[in-house]
Amino acid sequence: MTPLSRRSFLSTTAVAGALSAAAGAAPAVALPWQPKSLERPLPLAETSTPALIVDIDQVEANLKTMADYLKARGMGLRPHTKTHKCPYLAHRQMALGAVGVCCAKVSEAEVMAASGLTEILITSPVVTREKIDRVIALAKNCTGLQIVIDQAQNATDFDAAARAAGIRLGVLIDLESGTRRTGVPMGDAAAALARHIAPLKHLRLDGIQCYGGHVMHIGDFESRKAASLSMLAEARDTRLRIEADGIPLRNFTGGGTGTYDIDVAVEGMTDLQCGSYLVMDLQYGILGAPEGRIYDTFPQAMFVWSTAISQPVPGSMTIDAGLKAMYRDSPRPELRGITGVTYGIGGDEHGILSLENPSRPIRLGDKLALLPSHCDPTINLYDHFHACRNDRVEALWPISARGMSQ
Amino acid sequence: MTPLSRRSFLSTTAVAGALSAAAGAAPAVALPWQPKSLERPLPLAETSTPALIVDIDQVEANLKTMADYLKARGMGLRPHTKTHKCPYLAHRQMALGAVGVCCAKVSEAEVMAASGLTEILITSPVVTREKIDRVIALAKNCTGLQIVIDQAQNATDFDAAARAAGIRLGVLIDLESGTRRTGVPMGDAAAALARHIAPLKHLRLDGIQCYGGHVMHIGDFESRKAASLSMLAEARDTRLRIEADGIPLRNFTGGGTGTYDIDVAVEGMTDLQCGSYLVMDLQYGILGAPEGRIYDTFPQAMFVWSTAISQPVPGSMTIDAGLKAMYRDSPRPELRGITGVTYGIGGDEHGILSLENPSRPIRLGDKLALLPSHCDPTINLYDHFHACRNDRVEALWPISARGMSQ
Repeated sequence: MTPLSRRSFLSTTAVAGALSAAAGAAPAVALPWQPKSLERPLPLAETSTPALIVDIDQVEANLKTMADYLKARGMGLRPHTKTHKCPYLAHRQMALGAVGVCCAKVSEAEVMAASGLTEILITSPVVTREKIDRVIALAKNCTGLQIVIDQAQNATDFDAAARAAGIRLGVLIDLESGTRRTGVPMGDAAAALARHIAPLKHLRLDGIQCYGGHVMHIGDFESRKAASLSMLAEARDTRLRIEADGIPLRNFTGGGTGTYDIDVAVEGMTDLQCGSYLVMDLQYGILGAPEGRIYDTFPQAMFVWSTAISQPVPGSMTIDAGLKAMYRDSPRPELRGITGVTYGIGGDEHGILSLENPSRPIRLGDKLALLPSHCDPTINLYDHFHACRNDRVEALWPISARGMSQ
Repeated sequence: MTPLSRRSFLSTTAVAGALSAAAGAAPAVALPWQPKSLERPLPLAETSTPALIVDIDQVEANLKTMADYLKARGMGLRPHTKTHKCPYLAHRQMALGAVGVCCAKVSEAEVMAASGLTEILITSPVVTREKIDRVIALAKNCTGLQIVIDQAQNATDFDAAARAAGIRLGVLIDLESGTRRTGVPMGDAAAALARHIAPLKHLRLDGIQCYGGHVMHIGDFESRKAASLSMLAEARDTRLRIEADGIPLRNFTGGGTGTYDIDVAVEGMTDLQCGSYLVMDLQYGILGAPEGRIYDTFPQAMFVWSTAISQPVPGSMTIDAGLKAMYRDSPRPELRGITGVTYGIGGDEHGILSLENPSRPIRLGDKLALLPSHCDPTINLYDHFHACRNDRVEALWPISARGMSQ
């Protein structure tokens, strides 16, 4: 493994350090975030396992497919960094025309801001004193920072904190989409919240967010389409209703990888919060697409690299990737390029492959690529992506916001 | 947060750095591992969430209960660091009389060795060239390092590598316990493997390991007892059989938190590999104990601290702890000290509490303690424990081997 050169290490820590000092609050990390190129590409066969591998060319293709698709239709892309937690990938998304990035939590936003990103939307409500103070500190340097609010008292609290700091903070109203997770109910309640926020001098009401987490994984395309369009029609009506009160809104954000080709048609929607399209996972691989096809627009670009380490009984093979190497979720992880084998969890540290009818022999010491069920929490288990091209690891991409769930 | 003093930072990195240079292989981490005391204890109410909290006094009580119980019965304790991944806690366990520690993987052992521990057993087979080289490099400095082997060719490979390095490496034969995960079948096959290993000049056959992962969570105590004793009787017979071939064995290791009070009676067993007893989790909380009691010898000492951040619909409350804050497993996480509430996953970043009949009101901004389902993979999501006493965080204990699944 090649460490960062001393020069690039110093330059990155200097950026984060300066930000920290200026903001008066330690950012969550001040570690280097740029890719670390390996002096000599490392063959995958020699790479220590478990490792999280991304195919550089496929990631780039997925980045471009989504960027081009939305650009051609006049829709903005505000990719969600909670998927990759990797500032380098966020910078790639911005370079391809993203209008900004989303972060799920304050600490994730701190990491992204420390890498130099300025257009950041924190997509979950922030309600405690300590976190409000951190948002305000961040906003002093991160001029494009926006938050979401779903409750009047929280708006009052943020307005007071922004006033004390002498800043004005951009706000979106978070609408309850039907996911029943966060957000103010659409319609009357949202309009009342808008009337509460609009006169607050240190908040700037920029728009609305409506993210339908419950819609993304509806298997049948037509059902998914109907659910998303109905939800977003209600969000759009809510927007019109707020604007009818003399409160103009510029942002109408929501949507994701599961509905990007549906939501792109929603009138007045300004940008989509896609995340998973970058690497994909098996949860998306089982969704339907229009005309009875399978959703395969964004091929899987990520896998967990593992090794066959023991064969205690005939007909099965134990590998070194268990609960700590892949987040347990449905559907089951699958082997890339080998059929007739079923993966089962073998505890925290191991997986057990059931060799029903393997399409090629699997021997002790063999390295195997697993396609994980669910990309976001799996990525959150690793410190970096092994970025690979033609079966050789060319660079490590730091997952700098790993563990930043605060 | 108070960083380590410069002096203690330098002393810890110096230890790791020296080890690394001497071993000719970079250890997995060279970060400070000692607890970082906070200059001023931080009230839990002001602690940023999600955070992983341990109750210092309860951890110490659990440490002592297990150490005393086994000591009084002449049984050794070889605690498993895969649970806590925290060198400080491993040192506490050694200070209370542990005979050594277990590590699941090579990279975990590297972290523990870098903290100065020398008696380390790696409990999973290591089969690739790259990992064998790392084990050999580690063994040069970590004089008490032992590995497990379940296959003849692997013994031959390790012997050759140890010969090339001019060392002799301690080996336990890993027995297939019925878990069907790793190990050589007990009886004939194990005896043949022992006869293969014994003459190898650069391996030292120290004993056998028989860990019954499938036994630990059998709910009914008598059934668990019968399964564990039957398995270990077979392991003991295998030991006697190997020794009858003129191969004396000094280590007979296995067992865990779920069976410690059963396995303690097994004749010839030398030490138990308990891990979870330190902090416990809900998976142990549902087990039975003798005479129809519940298994409550080791009270839960760890929880995930979270905040109520949104109430989109009446009757539920959304908190900031989801898949990335607690490993999803059964049984469901529970609130500490509040009944009549059910936790449900609300995606990667959130949990949704269903407020059926809460024993006290839960309001926006309230902080709540969650008891996780499964301690090991939950700990593996965090960089440090917040070590707490009387509702104040006194220190951060680095989880230095977090993510070290290689």
